[in-house]
Amino acid sequence: MRQGNGPADKASRSPGDAIVTYKAGRHFLQIPGPTNVPDRVLRAMDMPTMDHRGPEFQEMAKRVLTGIRTIFQTKNPVVIYPGSGTGAWEAALVNTLSPGDLVLMYETGHFASLWKKLAERLGLRTEFIAGDWRHGADAAAIGERLKADSGHEIKAVCVVHNETSTGCVTPVGDVRKAIDAAGHPALLLVDTISSLGSVDYRHDEWGVDVTVGGSQKGLMLPPGLSFNALSDKAIAAQASAKLPRSYWAWDEMLAMNPNGFFPSTPATNLLYGLDAAIEMLHEEGLGNVFARHQRHAAATRAAVEAWGLEVLCADPAQHSGALTAVLMPDGKGADALRKVILERFDMSLGAGLSKLADKIFRIGHLGDYNDLTLIGTLGGVEMGLQVAGVAHKAGGVQAAMAVLAQSGAAEARQAAE
Amino acid sequence: MRQGNGPADKASRSPGDAIVTYKAGRHFLQIPGPTNVPDRVLRAMDMPTMDHRGPEFQEMAKRVLTGIRTIFQTKNPVVIYPGSGTGAWEAALVNTLSPGDLVLMYETGHFASLWKKLAERLGLRTEFIAGDWRHGADAAAIGERLKADSGHEIKAVCVVHNETSTGCVTPVGDVRKAIDAAGHPALLLVDTISSLGSVDYRHDEWGVDVTVGGSQKGLMLPPGLSFNALSDKAIAAQASAKLPRSYWAWDEMLAMNPNGFFPSTPATNLLYGLDAAIEMLHEEGLGNVFARHQRHAAATRAAVEAWGLEVLCADPAQHSGALTAVLMPDGKGADALRKVILERFDMSLGAGLSKLADKIFRIGHLGDYNDLTLIGTLGGVEMGLQVAGVAHKAGGVQAAMAVLAQSGAAEARQAAE
Amino acid sequence: MRQGNGPADKASRSPGDAIVTYKAGRHFLQIPGPTNVPDRVLRAMDMPTMDHRGPEFQEMAKRVLTGIRTIFQTKNPVVIYPGSGTGAWEAALVNTLSPGDLVLMYETGHFASLWKKLAERLGLRTEFIAGDWRHGADAAAIGERLKADSGHEIKAVCVVHNETSTGCVTPVGDVRKAIDAAGHPALLLVDTISSLGSVDYRHDEWGVDVTVGGSQKGLMLPPGLSFNALSDKAIAAQASAKLPRSYWAWDEMLAMNPNGFFPSTPATNLLYGLDAAIEMLHEEGLGNVFARHQRHAAATRAAVEAWGLEVLCADPAQHSGALTAVLMPDGKGADALRKVILERFDMSLGAGLSKLADKIFRIGHLGDYNDLTLIGTLGGVEMGLQVAGVAHKAGGVQAAMAVLAQSGAAEARQAAE
Amino acid sequence: MRQGNGPADKASRSPGDAIVTYKAGRHFLQIPGPTNVPDRVLRAMDMPTMDHRGPEFQEMAKRVLTGIRTIFQTKNPVVIYPGSGTGAWEAALVNTLSPGDLVLMYETGHFASLWKKLAERLGLRTEFIAGDWRHGADAAAIGERLKADSGHEIKAVCVVHNETSTGCVTPVGDVRKAIDAAGHPALLLVDTISSLGSVDYRHDEWGVDVTVGGSQKGLMLPPGLSFNALSDKAIAAQASAKLPRSYWAWDEMLAMNPNGFFPSTPATNLLYGLDAAIEMLHEEGLGNVFARHQRHAAATRAAVEAWGLEVLCADPAQHSGALTAVLMPDGKGADALRKVILERFDMSLGAGLSKLADKIFRIGHLGDYNDLTLIGTLGGVEMGLQVAGVAHKAGGVQAAMAVLAQSGAAEARQAAE
Repeated sequence: MRQGNGPADKASRSPGDAIVTYKAGRHFLQIPGPTNVPDRVLRAMDMPTMDHRGPEFQEMAKRVLTGIRTIFQTKNPVVIYPGSGTGAWEAALVNTLSPGDLVLMYETGHFASLWKKLAERLGLRTEFIAGDWRHGADAAAIGERLKADSGHEIKAVCVVHNETSTGCVTPVGDVRKAIDAAGHPALLLVDTISSLGSVDYRHDEWGVDVTVGGSQKGLMLPPGLSFNALSDKAIAAQASAKLPRSYWAWDEMLAMNPNGFFPSTPATNLLYGLDAAIEMLHEEGLGNVFARHQRHAAATRAAVEAWGLEVLCADPAQHSGALTAVLMPDGKGADALRKVILERFDMSLGAGLSKLADKIFRIGHLGDYNDLTLIGTLGGVEMGLQVAGVAHKAGGVQAAMAVLAQSGAAEARQAAE
Repeated sequence: MRQGNGPADKASRSPGDAIVTYKAGRHFLQIPGPTNVPDRVLRAMDMPTMDHRGPEFQEMAKRVLTGIRTIFQTKNPVVIYPGSGTGAWEAALVNTLSPGDLVLMYETGHFASLWKKLAERLGLRTEFIAGDWRHGADAAAIGERLKADSGHEIKAVCVVHNETSTGCVTPVGDVRKAIDAAGHPALLLVDTISSLGSVDYRHDEWGVDVTVGGSQKGLMLPPGLSFNALSDKAIAAQASAKLPRSYWAWDEMLAMNPNGFFPSTPATNLLYGLDAAIEMLHEEGLGNVFARHQRHAAATRAAVEAWGLEVLCADPAQHSGALTAVLMPDGKGADALRKVILERFDMSLGAGLSKLADKIFRIGHLGDYNDLTLIGTLGGVEMGLQVAGVAHKAGGVQAAMAVLAQSGAAEARQAAE
Repeated sequence: MRQGNGPADKASRSPGDAIVTYKAGRHFLQIPGPTNVPDRVLRAMDMPTMDHRGPEFQEMAKRVLTGIRTIFQTKNPVVIYPGSGTGAWEAALVNTLSPGDLVLMYETGHFASLWKKLAERLGLRTEFIAGDWRHGADAAAIGERLKADSGHEIKAVCVVHNETSTGCVTPVGDVRKAIDAAGHPALLLVDTISSLGSVDYRHDEWGVDVTVGGSQKGLMLPPGLSFNALSDKAIAAQASAKLPRSYWAWDEMLAMNPNGFFPSTPATNLLYGLDAAIEMLHEEGLGNVFARHQRHAAATRAAVEAWGLEVLCADPAQHSGALTAVLMPDGKGADALRKVILERFDMSLGAGLSKLADKIFRIGHLGDYNDLTLIGTLGGVEMGLQVAGVAHKAGGVQAAMAVLAQSGAAEARQAAE
Repeated sequence: MRQGNGPADKASRSPGDAIVTYKAGRHFLQIPGPTNVPDRVLRAMDMPTMDHRGPEFQEMAKRVLTGIRTIFQTKNPVVIYPGSGTGAWEAALVNTLSPGDLVLMYETGHFASLWKKLAERLGLRTEFIAGDWRHGADAAAIGERLKADSGHEIKAVCVVHNETSTGCVTPVGDVRKAIDAAGHPALLLVDTISSLGSVDYRHDEWGVDVTVGGSQKGLMLPPGLSFNALSDKAIAAQASAKLPRSYWAWDEMLAMNPNGFFPSTPATNLLYGLDAAIEMLHEEGLGNVFARHQRHAAATRAAVEAWGLEVLCADPAQHSGALTAVLMPDGKGADALRKVILERFDMSLGAGLSKLADKIFRIGHLGDYNDLTLIGTLGGVEMGLQVAGVAHKAGGVQAAMAVLAQSGAAEARQAAE
């Protein structure tokens, strides 16, 4: 059994085991989430659980419930669940829709497909606009479909902002415009799980009705919390939505949250962490956070290009700031490469999912992350390509350094403004 | 703004605030859950999040998924959710029942009532056997009702093992016998949220079909994980159960868990804590854990009796080992007392809920807890009664000490065997 | 092997060992130091070590070096050493004295005796004014001796402010007055290791030349830091002091500290903790901290009296706020009692030292401590007395509760002013 | 005020301050110590302080006192002090020497010079064999000098094993042989502060009399503990050594340590960390630890060479595995470069000290460290050189990757055997 700096007290647990091997240095967790949780967040969570009905909790919860709105860039309520992002997908649907309702979804990749499957399990009908897993959702195509739906059978449009399986970003504002241009009343539900706190996302400005988020990506928390940001229209939709719901129901949340309380026991210690994370994102400044991610993504793409490899996302305007998916050259398996990199360089990369399995690897460069860790990450990929015997040109790290040395985060942001 | 040893980095957050006041010593969190999380669990959680698709996670997850069975005393699978206990209530129902199914529930108190309300929101019909909130569920009454249900309209019987709002324990084994004696095929669903790891609970031996558990009580974790322990019959019930389900669905969990993986992102760091907690419970020995709780409950009741106050639970055979609810003498509000105790002695006690509001206070004595902390707890209650001017006799702590000094945990267990 | 919530990752370390036993609940560390370290301090220390020559360290160090002065109630520099209190004793002597110098010390107890022995090992001559280990130093006796020293052979007077082995406090201000009244130029060196941050201590007002402190008592830190607070006269004494010194030498410290740096590598993470601890003491307010300790000491003495036992300190005006030493009734060994209390109730009490060995036990009630923990502590003593068969009357805890219920910390302070 | 993931609860401490800025990602602490403390060590330290006179401490201390010997590769006692390495230098001298004794020292660099100065402050006479700060100590020169000392005036030879200011290693075994060849009875005292646990060091095999170590380098702890490993001859030397000593005296340590106790209060929580660190080094295997450091040093030198810069250490056989000092090209200040790297890339590098000030920078690559972090480190240097406008060739990181990709740690060790 091999062990890095994993949870303590595991050593020699089973007397019969082989000797545990401490592995020196920090693991590089470069999957596109969960991300590297900063010490400040972990330490904030490492405090005594408090009475979730008492005044100290109340004060903290009010601060968190207000603060989280700023991250979604909304003035409306954000509902916080103990649960994974999948749960928040479910919440978005059950609070707004009725059995048999038709939902228009867009096949941006694996996670869009999972959301579709979830919708079907809940008794919704779904329609999928086919995609090639190399682009974000096509707002025009959505608009066309809605225009054709003169009877307004479609009750909601669901898109994934940052498709974690491909690294392509959907222009959510354009989707909104397409819906409006079609004069269609469908709700707009958006998954921003892997972009929240990493890639610019504007719940209010873009007119999103329900935004689905998770804690374990740009929010820099461990997994275990998920979110629904709401529009007034979404809140109103509860009244007619007939899907059965209780745990995910917004009504009691919205009734109790203003006082700093929750209908069922909240995940107190994760809320401590969220409190710290919101504060940290504001200290850096959301604009700086987004610029940092764009800069790291650009450096990563420069490395991929130098290696002579191809970035999966085919539209330069849609490259994700949070992760970069890289196509393997013909005939080489991505999973063998990832295994070499894990075992030899102690770095976890994201795998290709479903139809992309073994065809791509994904480099997560989101969350609590900086230039030198990115260089280490890209160094691990470049050395891994060499050790695994994958055809490539050297010089990827060098190319990335050129990008990073050219301008710091501050300059990068200034330039972007 | 007052602050104890709460999450760090909160000090002086708002420049305009009054000065933060450090409050010396540890807060006494004596609500009946969440409980005091031991350092060993908090520190285990305070480790880097790992790749939930990698080999190190897999190894840890397998250990946890096996270990948790021993706590439920089952050889069958236990499903672990990121979510609160309320979610696991929902899970128990949606995986086994269909819209409009009739469920027989027993009004043991506030939490039984909440579960009933949740069932109704999901589209189930419920029937409530009335209770006085001073007893556990009456197995005989359940048996009578089932015998009368010759058409087997009732699809499930739901009881709360340890009613957290009252401190009364339902004899679950007797309920099983009553169902069997009635020759009724109803499923038996049991909530053991506040007893798991504190009060003896035997999923397999008692023939329970779905047991609902949570992390934040006897398991000594922060809130954020919940559980369903299953019987073969419950697993089979999925096939015909028509309630829509996705997040809570067991099928993918049962398919993936044997490999140490989960269908959606698990709450990794809470699993680290669970790993540690299971290990700790085994180090002490489950039998010793239960005996310790019984001993502390007996000492607490001795104190209540000495004060001349009344324990809410009216049946000595059903006193909870996890908490003790105490009736206020006429005319005095429990919440005013709790407020005095919180402000003056930095201890949180549980409030009376719904129809017991302001009429009782609840002393949690479960989880990571020992004799001297119990003495401190009871001292806080006794001094609080005095400071708040509640009529009582002195000597409660003295009476509790007599119980505790009489025999240690080891002896207590021996005697119990 | 038994284990409480000790350092993690120790479980099953040696496969051959017996099973490790988790011991539920928090250990009561009621020795008179090291004291219970609050989570906020432990968590502050649990952060990455930083470059002790960099700007971030510099900023923190300046804040700490300024803040620590307020705890000693001085405007003069305080030197901080990585080291134990014993080291700071040595530092006080080697920076101010020369080989063969005569030092007048006062036999208040074990620690005064150790300091004397240390002085002798360093090549100083010592003279001990005999004491009965039941009182603080007698200022009048010191004054008499100094008057008799017309040739000013005595170069320094050393007293222990709070004699940790007896629980008696020396009136340091009176010692200063006695020295002045004698017109004697001797330096006044005072050990406040177990009183700093617990019992009112005024370096400047009382005219102390060197005050010796440690981190692990009222400062609520783990052991590992110690202190010298200086007077101008002490600083000047370096010039003529001939004892060899390097590690403990003040000169480089005083030269570098104003810039936030140290001549050798400082104990960075302990400084993080000190930074937090100073902040916490100020949040509570030093006056409140002292009043809290007095109140707890009074309640403890009330318990001792109720048990029919005797407090070692024979002068009511000199009772320590930090600890209470209790005499065992004839013929009963204190160590057997302490063993029973440790094994049965998981509480550590202080032993009698040297000539008091086995004759007394010491209850520490200092540092991060509150009413209910004190009640638990006294409950452990009272139950221990019973279990160990030590003759005593019941009712000690009851008596302590009467004291504590009478007035809260705030009122206690108000009354004291 | 800028802040990375520093100690929590500092945010907004002073309302008047500018806004605190969270700086994303981990700081790269690449000074040659203190080093990056692994989570497992920090978390082990983040546990309640225990009674240092109780059985649980005793068990832990015995384990640590035994385990630390294996790190020094000695079967003899190792004395552990709360204190910095400077203190352990002092300890080595005061326990073995008398005022006016002549000590032969070797000018390997800044730290050898500091040790010399310390010896003089303690009243010893010193003789310095001049060095050029680009080599380790010359065993032959030492042997010559000793041969010339027919009267055995020289009582001890002091060398620094790994001169932290230069990155040159002294062949200690050769020094021993030279002493023996000279038939000289001088004691051999060696500073291994920055090599212990990083570069192979053999106290017994090399016949060292006192080895001086510290906690904050290869031992992966925060600063605050230091060590003396002893030979029988050193232990015997106490009898005649006349330098005054108390805190640093070995006698009481050696008397009490076998029982797991210490004469004064030990730094308990640092001992928890040491306990974990020793275990970790054994899990990796000391041989693997040393090979890992050699491999990283080789990769670093490959980078320096590719940049067209010069490594300070002039003898390839003496290159340190723990750090690499790099000479700046003419006319460029190293401190300006380090400032750029700190501000722009959040990495701390070591400065040139005393006569090397501003002429070199030092890259620490010791302790809890791995390939990708090294790549990040070297990337930071290469980008820093570019940003700061220091003349260099690109390709250093590329060269280092070639070294690292060639062979893993395991292969590297095998090859070395």
